[in-house]
Amino acid sequence: MVRRKSGRRSAEREAGMGFNQLPFGQVYSPYSPFEILSADQLEAIHQASLLVLRDTGMTFLLPEARELLKAAGADVQPGSDRVRFEPALIEALIKTAPSRFTMHSRNPAFNCEMGGNIITYGMVASPPNATDIDRGRRTGNFEDFCNFMRLAQLINVAHHVTGYPVEPIDIPVPVRHLKAYQAGVKLCEKVSFGYSHSRERILDVIEMTRIVRGISEEQMTREPSLFTVVNANSPLQYDRAMLEGIIEMAKRNQPVIVTPFTLSGAMAPVTIAGALVQQNAEALAGIAMTQVVNPGAPVLYGGFTSNVDMKTGSPAFGTPEYAKAVLVGGQLARKYGVPYRTSNVNASNAPDVQSAYESMNSLWSTMLAHGNYINHGLGWLEGGLSASFEKVIIDAEMIQNMIAFMEPLEVTEDSLAVDAINEVGPGGHFFGTAHTLARYETAFYAPMLSDWNNYENWSELGGLTATERANRIYKKLLVDYERPLMDPAIEEELDAYVDRRVAEGGAPLT
Amino acid sequence: MVRRKSGRRSAEREAGMGFNQLPFGQVYSPYSPFEILSADQLEAIHQASLLVLRDTGMTFLLPEARELLKAAGADVQPGSDRVRFEPALIEALIKTAPSRFTMHSRNPAFNCEMGGNIITYGMVASPPNATDIDRGRRTGNFEDFCNFMRLAQLINVAHHVTGYPVEPIDIPVPVRHLKAYQAGVKLCEKVSFGYSHSRERILDVIEMTRIVRGISEEQMTREPSLFTVVNANSPLQYDRAMLEGIIEMAKRNQPVIVTPFTLSGAMAPVTIAGALVQQNAEALAGIAMTQVVNPGAPVLYGGFTSNVDMKTGSPAFGTPEYAKAVLVGGQLARKYGVPYRTSNVNASNAPDVQSAYESMNSLWSTMLAHGNYINHGLGWLEGGLSASFEKVIIDAEMIQNMIAFMEPLEVTEDSLAVDAINEVGPGGHFFGTAHTLARYETAFYAPMLSDWNNYENWSELGGLTATERANRIYKKLLVDYERPLMDPAIEEELDAYVDRRVAEGGAPLT
Repeated sequence: MVRRKSGRRSAEREAGMGFNQLPFGQVYSPYSPFEILSADQLEAIHQASLLVLRDTGMTFLLPEARELLKAAGADVQPGSDRVRFEPALIEALIKTAPSRFTMHSRNPAFNCEMGGNIITYGMVASPPNATDIDRGRRTGNFEDFCNFMRLAQLINVAHHVTGYPVEPIDIPVPVRHLKAYQAGVKLCEKVSFGYSHSRERILDVIEMTRIVRGISEEQMTREPSLFTVVNANSPLQYDRAMLEGIIEMAKRNQPVIVTPFTLSGAMAPVTIAGALVQQNAEALAGIAMTQVVNPGAPVLYGGFTSNVDMKTGSPAFGTPEYAKAVLVGGQLARKYGVPYRTSNVNASNAPDVQSAYESMNSLWSTMLAHGNYINHGLGWLEGGLSASFEKVIIDAEMIQNMIAFMEPLEVTEDSLAVDAINEVGPGGHFFGTAHTLARYETAFYAPMLSDWNNYENWSELGGLTATERANRIYKKLLVDYERPLMDPAIEEELDAYVDRRVAEGGAPLT
Repeated sequence: MVRRKSGRRSAEREAGMGFNQLPFGQVYSPYSPFEILSADQLEAIHQASLLVLRDTGMTFLLPEARELLKAAGADVQPGSDRVRFEPALIEALIKTAPSRFTMHSRNPAFNCEMGGNIITYGMVASPPNATDIDRGRRTGNFEDFCNFMRLAQLINVAHHVTGYPVEPIDIPVPVRHLKAYQAGVKLCEKVSFGYSHSRERILDVIEMTRIVRGISEEQMTREPSLFTVVNANSPLQYDRAMLEGIIEMAKRNQPVIVTPFTLSGAMAPVTIAGALVQQNAEALAGIAMTQVVNPGAPVLYGGFTSNVDMKTGSPAFGTPEYAKAVLVGGQLARKYGVPYRTSNVNASNAPDVQSAYESMNSLWSTMLAHGNYINHGLGWLEGGLSASFEKVIIDAEMIQNMIAFMEPLEVTEDSLAVDAINEVGPGGHFFGTAHTLARYETAFYAPMLSDWNNYENWSELGGLTATERANRIYKKLLVDYERPLMDPAIEEELDAYVDRRVAEGGAPLT
């Protein structure tokens, strides 16, 4: 179900683009989440993860983080980077994490609620390659980065940007976070993202976000405006940069998406239950860390448990095991009362049927799990190693299907249509009835990519596969793209900040 | 979850076929069905459909059917083909329908349970065209028919045959049911199907089924062995042939799959709730008819509510509306305690991403709805106008994903793996641990079509899309196909029956 906030549908119809978009808006599931574990089974995973945190604990590679945790009551021994937690301490620390908050965008029309039964979809993040079916695969670059940001602005079911939709590898690393954020935030107004790659970098992005929103530091602390993801170095380790990210973001009340990467059979046990125990231990320790820094800071429970293919050693995504892990992750996040991050993933090397059915395993399970922040929603291919332009459109269509599915079935005297059925009677049809005429224009979901012409008409129109149509659609969108307005004073301040930091050398690798 | 009955997996591995199949077996869902309507909303649909049957009723075009219904208490007026039912009469009549029964095959290893949380998948049925990516689309013919029957025999997740997988249009109509059944039952041992196209034809197929099973009429009455589908001529009409099918099948205790075809906006109201009211009225009347003929005869509640595309007038399949109708259909079937038939459908004209994501909408919703008999499970394309060889393989993979998803997540002390996590500790990996080594070979679902190689290896292997790989797989399966054994005496009796009936002219069109 969508509460409409702003729409492009009518404008596109006028422009004769030939495809439909649902309006941008807050999507929420009217259905109970689908739960595959009993309360006892869930509790068994919870208890097992607490045992891991008590007996083995986790490595926290940043001394400042260890000091904060020690002061909060964790077991930290001198000369060791290991931190152990008593079960009661973890349970007490995570209690202050909020179950719901609002994310603020540079354009308030694109603000997003997080939590409860609200479902949001983000763009793909971080692939080192870009691909389309015209030019094939190439190393991530600034031009493709900008085009993906343009699509993120134009596609209504992209609720937020979740990182670089493709890594702009042609921008030198010390200034990449500056130049990429600067360009991206001008091209796309959706809620933005900063990488926790070092203290200096995340502070730059926090400051740029504040400038773009045109607000004070105090207001930004009241109004979360920037996401970051913090991955555990699974198993059981947080590195310095990630911990600096937690500290600087949580301190300023900006949400941290704590996401272990627990690949069953590689960095996590070969059993999915075991991988979930490890995911949960790592997530709870990361969530606890945010609350130690700033009790009440917004934080998300992230799950990213999948399995390796035992034949090739490659990670597999969008598998049956993945779907089960997604659903259990949702149960755990709800147990802790924290919004849930999950992902739309697949392992295919082409925007083909495999990419579609693996993504649909992901999209159905994330929707049924009440995934509040669905990362990599649009464009992910090759297990995350490529961002695909066609896949952005294919995913947009599949996500629109999910959103239309979440539109509750109306059961009213009027929609039950007993009078219309009796009026038409045996052997008739409903095409011309008043009941049909009053409703047919908006009765059903209208797709942006699916072609429902019969075979003859479809053949006459060129007999294009859906992937070939997606190629045309993304190119048409880019042709019609217009940069959203930005207050010239804000733009000037942003550019000045970036110029100054670039002149200073950016944030060199340390 | 699968209870293994017989498997081909090891034989295929030995043959170096390079892809895996799950074993043939009884699949059941360990999860509660997903329900999208409240009990009150469901009751509103039920009550509305009873009003339609009371006030407008249905046309029953066969006098014999009207007489049986009149004798059972329905309102039938002289000179009219309309039959009206008091709500209490419908509710009383359907009570005798069994909630569970066993279907018997010519090979008991392929028997199927029907009902409860058991999920079975059938082949595509009845397309007038066949297609593959080598030769393209052609009119349905006997050669393609036989090849689809061979695939039905070889593919383990095809639990039953659901009609002609493609219409063998080159066999003259009067003898088509004889020659197609004769050929099909020799090529494939799975539970079989007869069309209710006339009394004479369905009686021929019933008799051939009895011969092939090598049993008496009495034993066949105790052991249901043949499915038929009876479609309403929606709205609100059953034709002569369909009613003859109900009468002859129910009389012999063979299951009738009562399936209204309620296309919202065309032959049913433009609201999905209204289309479901009509579906339910038609289904209840058909189910009641089976029980009037033979109280306790096996019968299925069939749902086939989708919507027309208001732009082209074509039927759309695998839409969000379809998924919702599938789930409500399951709720209604459970309310009446009757097994549920639903379908794996899509409206794409090519075995492309659209065919995959629309089918996945179907497969996820049918699985969540506890669809007991999932028709058109493998091979349906173009809204049912073509049977696709590649789509058979794509669907087999997607169905295997569903079945693997229904394997319950094991939560035991052993699978929680606390000891393994503690043993590996921070920064290690699980590749060589005893916990991994003891489990890795069977830990995860192994696909038959998905390719999880990395991009470089995939490119070196030819960079084939999943549809191109599906093409290779179906051709390899056909090369390796071997006809299953049939008792020579039975084969002789079957051939003699067909020869005699063909010599008599078969069943001419009337």
